[in-house]
Amino acid sequence: MKAKVRLYVDQPLGAAQPVPLTREQAHYLLGVMRMGVGDAVALFNGRDGEWQAEVAEAGKRGGVLVCREQSAPLTLPPDLWLLFAPIKKARTDFIVEKAVEMGVRRICPVQTAFTNSERIRQDRLQAHAVEAAEQCGATFVPEVADLAKLDRVLADWDTSRRIAFCDEALAGETGRLPDAPGPWAILIGPEGGFSEAERSRLRGLAHATPIGLGPRILRADTAAVAALTLWQSALGDWA
Amino acid sequence: MKAKVRLYVDQPLGAAQPVPLTREQAHYLLGVMRMGVGDAVALFNGRDGEWQAEVAEAGKRGGVLVCREQSAPLTLPPDLWLLFAPIKKARTDFIVEKAVEMGVRRICPVQTAFTNSERIRQDRLQAHAVEAAEQCGATFVPEVADLAKLDRVLADWDTSRRIAFCDEALAGETGRLPDAPGPWAILIGPEGGFSEAERSRLRGLAHATPIGLGPRILRADTAAVAALTLWQSALGDWA
Repeated sequence: MKAKVRLYVDQPLGAAQPVPLTREQAHYLLGVMRMGVGDAVALFNGRDGEWQAEVAEAGKRGGVLVCREQSAPLTLPPDLWLLFAPIKKARTDFIVEKAVEMGVRRICPVQTAFTNSERIRQDRLQAHAVEAAEQCGATFVPEVADLAKLDRVLADWDTSRRIAFCDEALAGETGRLPDAPGPWAILIGPEGGFSEAERSRLRGLAHATPIGLGPRILRADTAAVAALTLWQSALGDWA
Repeated sequence: MKAKVRLYVDQPLGAAQPVPLTREQAHYLLGVMRMGVGDAVALFNGRDGEWQAEVAEAGKRGGVLVCREQSAPLTLPPDLWLLFAPIKKARTDFIVEKAVEMGVRRICPVQTAFTNSERIRQDRLQAHAVEAAEQCGATFVPEVADLAKLDRVLADWDTSRRIAFCDEALAGETGRLPDAPGPWAILIGPEGGFSEAERSRLRGLAHATPIGLGPRILRADTAAVAALTLWQSALGDWA
């Protein structure tokens, strides 16, 4: 029987491996989804690929799954990071969800001159990333980093990782991704764009390239999906 | 003074043209935004480009703007339609917003075998399209069509308009857009994908092409932005 539920667990997966459920997982699988002994669940942990498991014990206080066989190997997305300036809560959640679906290795919220957020709930965003991975069939979950100042991030940058930056002030420019392999990051400006100082700093970096996203001004969440699409189809795992 | 507010109005725009405000517009500009006589507003109506106007009369019961000069000509997006199967309310709103930002001429909600919605609020979705156009700097607002059955839509189709269709069952396929000019439509399948009958019908149409959106399963709203990005950058006004 093919599993209808796909669940992220933070435990080792392997043949005949028992996986005790957390209270929350037991509530979801046994309570909400009304599963019982013998029902199938697909599991992944971000390291061991996807495994078909089944419910081996189901009780009032918890349950245990047992892995049967691997149904997919671990597949890492390309070595691409997404840097973005957090915006309103719903749209920030959305950007994290979209980054996972589109396939990135790491999600880095950055504070820019025109970013409103002083802080983020990293744990909540990480949980969103897990949910998105459960939903989109990924076997890997990108880490959501803590909020960091863009200035600091750029100062500490390993310049072997190229940066493609998108800015609403570039609407109408036709910057294209250079056909360069190797690690990349996409940087999405906040609504309101980068400050002049940020923009000239970015333009001065040899490892950074502006990319254009058409003549209309895109919201940050739209820009994230669009830029990730351009990158994935040119240099990533859509090619 | 550069206008901070950009407003869609359903009235003719031209030099010295007075534009009486509806009660709702007067409430927004004069009440919420606290504007008064002399303050600047950018106007567009989807036909006459963008005009800089200013508040000429502001009273308790309404107000009048007067157009000064045109600040942008009417710019139509490319002749691209978006067909999609409406999903949960928030994500349907989102798809309409994204379609406007990305630049389409017409937005067509379609009912497929696996579409949950029996009906949509066309007026509400059209209002979303207007808001998105106000926000993204567009001078054109795509029409949101009424919900129609996909079978019917395909039966009545003008075959000079090509269709690029995306389906979650195609995840991992690498179908590419043919380099063909002329009118196009992008068709996004519902979550759960097309039915077998729909899929084989689409595959049998000479004017339809499957396109791949990478190895992960994208939600319908992500797929819409990704497919519009591929089209705009290959055949549209991002090229």
